[in-house]
Amino acid sequence: MTVDLTFDDGLIPAIAHDAESGQVLMFAYASPEAIERTEETGLAHYYSRSREELWQKGATSGHVQHVEAIRVDCDGDALVYEVEQEGGACHTGYESCFYRTVETVERTDASVAVSTTETGEQLFDPEEVYE
Amino acid sequence: MTVDLTFDDGLIPAIAHDAESGQVLMFAYASPEAIERTEETGLAHYYSRSREELWQKGATSGHVQHVEAIRVDCDGDALVYEVEQEGGACHTGYESCFYRTVETVERTDASVAVSTTETGEQLFDPEEVYE
Repeated sequence: MTVDLTFDDGLIPAIAHDAESGQVLMFAYASPEAIERTEETGLAHYYSRSREELWQKGATSGHVQHVEAIRVDCDGDALVYEVEQEGGACHTGYESCFYRTVETVERTDASVAVSTTETGEQLFDPEEVYE
Repeated sequence: MTVDLTFDDGLIPAIAHDAESGQVLMFAYASPEAIERTEETGLAHYYSRSREELWQKGATSGHVQHVEAIRVDCDGDALVYEVEQEGGACHTGYESCFYRTVETVERTDASVAVSTTETGEQLFDPEEVYE
């Protein structure tokens, strides 16, 4: 089945999912070029909205993601990269970027503050990896 | 630790993750109200961009998501709902919305067409659930 991917402002949400542990590792966006590069190299590529550039995960840290499969959702507007993660996925040193669990939610109109506890595992010291 | 969530156009990406199987079930967006309702009720709420309204997952189909935990990422701009899913998560009848795996990627400038195979499990007939 052929699916035309839907991009929003030139980007599509891409979820990195650990193929072995089943953890959600990180959330980012992919551009058409990022998807093409991911497929060609087998390494996860994204598009950094803050740096406004194509980004190979792990290019600086060495914590690359080997992509075993790319899945596309029912609407063709979101992707899952099934990955084997080298090192931790998060620049904070945690295995997953989702290392904090919400305890309480406080909403004030359009803003939300949450209190959290750290429930993820820290694998490395970011100061040693990013100089 | 207190985290002020970052909303983009009033919304934050929310990934539904099956707490038991570890599958990524669906990708959607949450509004401040959706997060508050999720926390209050223990049932996953999102914001539908197409219908422009708060949306309780399963309100029509009965396929609700019991939220066991909400996780927040390092930047405070994405959420994971750890859920126990009743029925299938996808309106197509599949367990996960990400039931298609990419075989080939064809990029033409700003568009991408992918050929896929169905690798997910279909749990119900959508015609019987959505009338």
